[in-house]
Amino acid sequence: MSRELKRKIGVNFNDAGLAEIRFWSPEAETVELKTEAVTVALEKKELGYWELSGAGIYPGNTYQFLINGETLIPDPASLSQPQGVHGPSEAVDLSAFSWTDQDWKNPELGDYIFYELHTGTFTPEGTFEGIIAKLDYLVELGITAIEIMPVAQFPGGRNWGYDGVFPFAVQNSYGAAAGLQQLVDASHAKGLAVVLDVVYNHMGPEGNYFEQAGPYFTEKYHTPWGSAINFDDAWSDGVRRYFIENVLMWFRDFHIDGLRLDAVHAIKDLGVKHLLQEISEEVDQLIEATHRKHHLIAECDLNDNKYINSPDQHGYGMDAQWIDEFHHALRVTAGEPATGYYSDFSGIKDLEKSYRDAYIYDGVYSPHRLKTFGGTAEGNAGSQFVVFSQNHDQVGNRMLGERSSTLVSYEMQKLMAGAVICSPFLPMLFMGEEWGETNPFLFFTSHGDPELIKAVSKGRKAEFAAFHAEGEAPEPQSEDTFNQSKLQWDLLQSDGHSELLSFYKTIIGLRKKYAPLRNTNRKQLTVSADAKTNCLVLRRWEEEVQVLCLMNFSKNTQDITIPDDK
Amino acid sequence: MSRELKRKIGVNFNDAGLAEIRFWSPEAETVELKTEAVTVALEKKELGYWELSGAGIYPGNTYQFLINGETLIPDPASLSQPQGVHGPSEAVDLSAFSWTDQDWKNPELGDYIFYELHTGTFTPEGTFEGIIAKLDYLVELGITAIEIMPVAQFPGGRNWGYDGVFPFAVQNSYGAAAGLQQLVDASHAKGLAVVLDVVYNHMGPEGNYFEQAGPYFTEKYHTPWGSAINFDDAWSDGVRRYFIENVLMWFRDFHIDGLRLDAVHAIKDLGVKHLLQEISEEVDQLIEATHRKHHLIAECDLNDNKYINSPDQHGYGMDAQWIDEFHHALRVTAGEPATGYYSDFSGIKDLEKSYRDAYIYDGVYSPHRLKTFGGTAEGNAGSQFVVFSQNHDQVGNRMLGERSSTLVSYEMQKLMAGAVICSPFLPMLFMGEEWGETNPFLFFTSHGDPELIKAVSKGRKAEFAAFHAEGEAPEPQSEDTFNQSKLQWDLLQSDGHSELLSFYKTIIGLRKKYAPLRNTNRKQLTVSADAKTNCLVLRRWEEEVQVLCLMNFSKNTQDITIPDDK
Repeated sequence: MSRELKRKIGVNFNDAGLAEIRFWSPEAETVELKTEAVTVALEKKELGYWELSGAGIYPGNTYQFLINGETLIPDPASLSQPQGVHGPSEAVDLSAFSWTDQDWKNPELGDYIFYELHTGTFTPEGTFEGIIAKLDYLVELGITAIEIMPVAQFPGGRNWGYDGVFPFAVQNSYGAAAGLQQLVDASHAKGLAVVLDVVYNHMGPEGNYFEQAGPYFTEKYHTPWGSAINFDDAWSDGVRRYFIENVLMWFRDFHIDGLRLDAVHAIKDLGVKHLLQEISEEVDQLIEATHRKHHLIAECDLNDNKYINSPDQHGYGMDAQWIDEFHHALRVTAGEPATGYYSDFSGIKDLEKSYRDAYIYDGVYSPHRLKTFGGTAEGNAGSQFVVFSQNHDQVGNRMLGERSSTLVSYEMQKLMAGAVICSPFLPMLFMGEEWGETNPFLFFTSHGDPELIKAVSKGRKAEFAAFHAEGEAPEPQSEDTFNQSKLQWDLLQSDGHSELLSFYKTIIGLRKKYAPLRNTNRKQLTVSADAKTNCLVLRRWEEEVQVLCLMNFSKNTQDITIPDDK
Repeated sequence: MSRELKRKIGVNFNDAGLAEIRFWSPEAETVELKTEAVTVALEKKELGYWELSGAGIYPGNTYQFLINGETLIPDPASLSQPQGVHGPSEAVDLSAFSWTDQDWKNPELGDYIFYELHTGTFTPEGTFEGIIAKLDYLVELGITAIEIMPVAQFPGGRNWGYDGVFPFAVQNSYGAAAGLQQLVDASHAKGLAVVLDVVYNHMGPEGNYFEQAGPYFTEKYHTPWGSAINFDDAWSDGVRRYFIENVLMWFRDFHIDGLRLDAVHAIKDLGVKHLLQEISEEVDQLIEATHRKHHLIAECDLNDNKYINSPDQHGYGMDAQWIDEFHHALRVTAGEPATGYYSDFSGIKDLEKSYRDAYIYDGVYSPHRLKTFGGTAEGNAGSQFVVFSQNHDQVGNRMLGERSSTLVSYEMQKLMAGAVICSPFLPMLFMGEEWGETNPFLFFTSHGDPELIKAVSKGRKAEFAAFHAEGEAPEPQSEDTFNQSKLQWDLLQSDGHSELLSFYKTIIGLRKKYAPLRNTNRKQLTVSADAKTNCLVLRRWEEEVQVLCLMNFSKNTQDITIPDDK
């Protein structure tokens, strides 16, 4: 791989094995690299960068940066934090891994069937190696891509991943960089794509040394996590570059097939070219250079197709987005009480609308948001929307983290699976739903800062006021909370669960087998729902073949009148 | 005029002369209208509105709203504040004015030559009547439109207008609503268009009763004035409607020809449809109904043509924008030291670029902003950009408010006038520049709150640190500061000044007479500048006619090589 296709920040190694170091700290007076052996000054370059070539640092050495002779911090672009978020960084040569996936071909997005998993709780081991051992199982299930919750280094060993503070360093307790490379290589060998969840809208609260390094944040905007990341204020070029380099690294050095960008609505950027558009353009350039395809998938709750439209259409060029509204409508249809953020949804007529229009609030008044909300998604293919009946957030944001299995009937679980998998959108499963896992997926942390632990616990309890939940929220910091959230693979030995798995395999198989289910052309469908009977008829076709999906969300047998041919 | 074409908030009168009252206060429990005679409850309607029809209130009566039986405030949509910002509102029937401008036809934007004026300091009287007395003078000067600095009611009698707190009420000391209607009617009779400066990005600090009425502000964004106006948060529909109604009122009820929207970059709106786009769509509907044209001109410092592109091109649909960069380049070329916000400009090569590309920072790194900034304005006509060699801000934001006349030579004043008036953009003069007014245009206020007076004075002094100005900033609150800023019309009797006026008349006449100068087609020009001689050659043409503008910004005679024919 040519020099140009290497990471341009942090500590990297050239073809001769010598370190090339680039550190961004625009307001520093001096910057030095400190290893156990040496302390060497970096040279100030343009735009806030400091550089050093050929210092006596090699893969496996640990290092820190010393700013103005007084502030010693790990590298914000660190590739490895062997001693956790507060320890020194470790130099890593990402090109050392021996890839065997030369023949791998990333599928078209339309062929994706996602399986979202959390590395720490997916297997008893809680590691990338643990996942590798389950790949055959996943292939047999029929999904085509695993989607891994964030793996950027976070405090301690238990975290959903959204408290990460080293976006370039793979969590040491999961298996670090080489472990992830191994997982991707093994997945490709089994024919599975790998999507990685990345967080560009905030940084975690503990081990956050960014402010000491440079102006990574701005007071211009407020986000749920405090000051926004600085994407459009003074010095923002360096911050933007930092995240763009992160995107490129996952694709180029980890062979990741797609990124899921967390909550992009919280990426505040009012400059001429939105960060997401710049990312999309840089990825296009990478694709041109490597001839390997990559997908960009945004989590976005704005119902604004500017995010998924191409730059020709003045869009930001994301390939697809999550669509929570489909989930909310489906859940309310299946009996979820319409409280909290479900209060905007009334049930099956909303579900019908989502099958037809993707966005439900497409320019109408939202009582929950207290404002007119959203636009239309006309002209966007079904393959631009990811749908699900549960996911880490929708489960884990419940106070008791209940999965569908403990909330709805066995038959309803099957119906929800069908509703998702037969949709004209891209289906996503949440780990364990295919066998009706009964363990919850709770919110868990392993912070080191006692004040923070208290604040998180308190915040968590306050959060459930909107849902008027009864009882007490489990303690996020407790190891029990984490252990209770692990999948119980032995459930697969018991009848009800193995039967549900068979159902999932069958219906995934149907989606793959029949063109009308496989295609994501939203023009080749009709849908009609009856609020009285709580039944929905979805008709999909491809040339002469038609598929009729009849969904009865009521508790009773219902007569459904099949609408005439299209 | 039909009922639909009336204002939909505040106190209005129907064709039968009865009041129709609509007040927005979504979180109120009760709302009552209080006049000297009566107290009547309003009825709660949808979306936070309270309504009352036919209450015993008539034009000329004063009134307030009583919220929850305890908070008594003037009407945020008040049309008149006869006792100033803290007093009660006065009911006004805007349809009472007898218009005589039925034959008036608003010119195309390309034919606009703006004359920016401040009502309080333009004439000794400091009123709309005072302006009317000068219309003949302005016609003779040759400008085609007066642009009036904001007239929304502000505290006291002395203010630039950007501290307004009643966007619908015309400043009482200027002549109130009827006075402005009279001025517009008189201007139209003389063939002059009227542009009004309006402020939708913040409200003034004193007499600001908005928060008591409803959620007009949001903490989501920070602006130079504190919390942003709520254009995209909960309850934003009512706030958006409030400002849209304001736009429509000026066009419909005051026959204003164009609005200049102050600092639209500080209007923070991340919803699907930007407020400006909604305004532009509503204005289009009004134009369709009345067959009267209106122009929307944004002050915008983002170098982002999304603001002036049409909605078909995914733009916000403003017709034109101010372009400060042309001013900055011109001033530095004319000898202005490159400090403060001038530090990004190096002189004549920037001016050359602005003639050619409008935006100077069009995607390049800006050392002053410490970031890459702006995009290109390709495809935008010259008539979408307003240029000037001075304006209220550029003069008044100097510590001592010096106009060009006291900063550059007499010859340089003429050259700058030529540079602006011969540009392919829309020229704007600032009142008095045409005779080289020597009085400053200082920052002045007449607040009533002693704390605020102190804070403004202090802030003003701090502001000039960036310019390293010597001496002390004049006291904004002092009446002297205001009086010193008034135009000295008697200067016109003295030689140098009357001669400069003749020059302005001549060059404006040339722009109007010769098609190559009049047209705003940016493709029909070439420009080249020489940094060594500080000379610039601008060639413009229309069919077979060519105009060559030779500009020598140096102190010496220079040989200029005329470039070959196009």
